[in-house]
Amino acid sequence: MARTGRRPGNQDTRQAILSAARQAFAERGYDGASIRQIATSAGVDPALVHHYFGAKDKLFLATMEAPIDPGEVIPKIFEAGLDGVGERLVRTFLGVWDSPAGSSAAALFRSALQHEWSARMLREFLVTQVLRRAIGHLQLDPAEAPRRAALVASQMAGIVMVRYILKVEPMASMSQEELVHSIAPTIQRYLSEPLYSPAPD
Amino acid sequence: MARTGRRPGNQDTRQAILSAARQAFAERGYDGASIRQIATSAGVDPALVHHYFGAKDKLFLATMEAPIDPGEVIPKIFEAGLDGVGERLVRTFLGVWDSPAGSSAAALFRSALQHEWSARMLREFLVTQVLRRAIGHLQLDPAEAPRRAALVASQMAGIVMVRYILKVEPMASMSQEELVHSIAPTIQRYLSEPLYSPAPD
Repeated sequence: MARTGRRPGNQDTRQAILSAARQAFAERGYDGASIRQIATSAGVDPALVHHYFGAKDKLFLATMEAPIDPGEVIPKIFEAGLDGVGERLVRTFLGVWDSPAGSSAAALFRSALQHEWSARMLREFLVTQVLRRAIGHLQLDPAEAPRRAALVASQMAGIVMVRYILKVEPMASMSQEELVHSIAPTIQRYLSEPLYSPAPD
Repeated sequence: MARTGRRPGNQDTRQAILSAARQAFAERGYDGASIRQIATSAGVDPALVHHYFGAKDKLFLATMEAPIDPGEVIPKIFEAGLDGVGERLVRTFLGVWDSPAGSSAAALFRSALQHEWSARMLREFLVTQVLRRAIGHLQLDPAEAPRRAALVASQMAGIVMVRYILKVEPMASMSQEELVHSIAPTIQRYLSEPLYSPAPD
């Protein structure tokens, strides 16, 4: 469960809020869900939701039982801009996934795929907590940014699948350095080079 | 279920063979499992396994309920060699996954992740039926080939995850042409260019 730095509070109340939040996020998506609705459906005051979980993004992290807070990791990768972003992204990503938090993340990824609603939660998490934050740090053409972010996500999700979930060799045991050198140029290209191959003369 | 072109035969016997085969492949892997052991454990003659399912790779496909036979698709992509392989791979891959067979494949992919044994089956399938066949068609340095294949697999598995399973926009609705142009250079680089960035002078 994501650490919020707040005291645990009444467990039944917390669970009621989490359960209402999970349903709200799955049904209405992250943007469509509101703290007010979640509080109403849990039978508590909205102030109590804020008190236990903080802002909506923290509540969403707690609902997902996310072992990592993208709000902490993503600025380190993207704040410095496009120069070298591929290498920073792959290196940071592997650092997190090769850590104990990575095992929790892999379990989350696996179980999220079992139901339509939990897959939707994972999609919402990826889009609103990861991709949207990342794009926010980069100076990209707004017409291209979501496509570039999705291409990056496809390469990184594939590493999760092949290295951490299916554990296909040799990728499961390749060193971080080896993977950084191999994959960083892909990410760099998806983010900073023209997406279309020029037509031959 | 993979079509073998053979008559269905006795359903109980077929199911007994499939069940024994599933266990054998999950426990011993594709290479470690033998038709003879599978027949013994199903209580039938090995000739009957051949009669119903054909060779071991076809039995494995049937066990996986694979909607696509990699033995038919892969030569079309790789037989012509490295020149243009990135484009042929992405185009063929999207053609298959955007077809009705793709929905079955996505369901298979999802359910395979739910258990350790079924994830192992999917890994075995990927390694022995897809990557090994693909490598077999290309003239690659044997010391690098498995790593190159795993890198390609990571990009393609990520497309499965983002486009077909999580259905993240805009990737879920990007045209095949757009994806071919964006992703083919990645595949081409993983297969045909030096994997390491040269150190600067």
